[in-house]
Amino acid sequence: MCELLGMSANVPTDICFSFSGLIKRGGETGPHRDGWGIAFYQGRGVREFRDPQPGFDSEIAKFIKDFPIKSTVVISHIRQANVGEVSLENTHPFIRELEGRYWCYAHNGQLKGLELLTRTVEARFSPVGDTDSEAAFCWLMGMLAKGKGQSLEARETLIQTCADQLAQLGVFNMLLSDGDRLYVYCSTKLHWITRRAPFGVATLHDDDISVNFGEETSVDDVVTMIATEPLTTNETWVKMQPGELAVFERGELISRG
Amino acid sequence: MCELLGMSANVPTDICFSFSGLIKRGGETGPHRDGWGIAFYQGRGVREFRDPQPGFDSEIAKFIKDFPIKSTVVISHIRQANVGEVSLENTHPFIRELEGRYWCYAHNGQLKGLELLTRTVEARFSPVGDTDSEAAFCWLMGMLAKGKGQSLEARETLIQTCADQLAQLGVFNMLLSDGDRLYVYCSTKLHWITRRAPFGVATLHDDDISVNFGEETSVDDVVTMIATEPLTTNETWVKMQPGELAVFERGELISRG
Repeated sequence: MCELLGMSANVPTDICFSFSGLIKRGGETGPHRDGWGIAFYQGRGVREFRDPQPGFDSEIAKFIKDFPIKSTVVISHIRQANVGEVSLENTHPFIRELEGRYWCYAHNGQLKGLELLTRTVEARFSPVGDTDSEAAFCWLMGMLAKGKGQSLEARETLIQTCADQLAQLGVFNMLLSDGDRLYVYCSTKLHWITRRAPFGVATLHDDDISVNFGEETSVDDVVTMIATEPLTTNETWVKMQPGELAVFERGELISRG
Repeated sequence: MCELLGMSANVPTDICFSFSGLIKRGGETGPHRDGWGIAFYQGRGVREFRDPQPGFDSEIAKFIKDFPIKSTVVISHIRQANVGEVSLENTHPFIRELEGRYWCYAHNGQLKGLELLTRTVEARFSPVGDTDSEAAFCWLMGMLAKGKGQSLEARETLIQTCADQLAQLGVFNMLLSDGDRLYVYCSTKLHWITRRAPFGVATLHDDDISVNFGEETSVDDVVTMIATEPLTTNETWVKMQPGELAVFERGELISRG
């Protein structure tokens, strides 16, 4: 099991509070000792940090917790290695460029028989590491490349179809973004929550930390968090259904199917 | 003008000392106030840090100076914006995946008339930002993709030919790597030095820092540094010639033409 964390917001927002909770699960309160990574979109650019070391004592994780990076889309992952050695190239999230956008992806689960799918597409995108997760991402990106120039609706349908196919090969919980939209696919376990005015106080599960979002945000801010398990103890998170694709943009749920 | 810094080494080596010199040129001793970036290969993976802020007071730059990341190939760049706004997506180095390797690239110079070249290749790789540098990289990657499966010698010839073509459009000093080899093309100004036993003491131009490499290294270490201008005052750097491509692997110059 790995932990996923995603964010979509309508204004650049720092994720330090949620990241504090997630990173604790990297070896301290959770079993996810095999590295972690996080990608922050800022404009069309993306900033990544990743570390094959356990999150909870990583220097880079401490840096990110202390140095607030404001972003509109964030994808993060803590890994417990199942397939592929513990190394930088096997650490999520993975990124590829397609049609002048950086696509970023993280996966929780295990897949078997991927070669049956990947054989069907010209290998425009190839995995650098050894994980089933990255191989699935490369196949998905190849499928998106084949749908070049299609509408956002058609693209969403294609992502749903591809994710359904991957979920037939095992567990496939996924976060995927092009920097504008955040596509969230649930195969077994994912939760989300949208925070907006009036903001309350949130208390982290894994840390003795509370944040009064009312002090940290303005009245127009809309921020959605997505996580494998709810990160806070005093808020109601929406549990996703198996096979469901939720799409977020600027913090708002824009599609759910 | 931008500053380039590259490293090729036969053992994972930290570049903090040289980076200290380079980063000072980001707004303090040099005019390069429009951001910086650095990529470290570790195995097949690559770790990047980039910041549109001036280097000399960037939090991320301080972190990298203090937290030694050991790597066998490093590409770094400090930018003075000529083309393209100051933003994350316009900050070098740029990275694309080809045939299961991350290719990393940084460029110093300005190019005009690129569209005459880029028009000739199917746009498999597209720029995310607005710089001529990234457009040239995408064209070069498209040309390498067309040469799929070719020998390392044929690839080197192709890189030389493409770089020569780009240099006809303006100034094209370049660092390019697939994680194994570091390809260094000089259009106007680049210098390199190979350090090996017996290691001496080096003194930085831009900082009151000396390092005794003999204390920091073992007798088998071979480390080549590449920089726009020599970074040290008491060593002899090799000045590259216009039109020259030098290829380094595991710290050693393996080809020069």
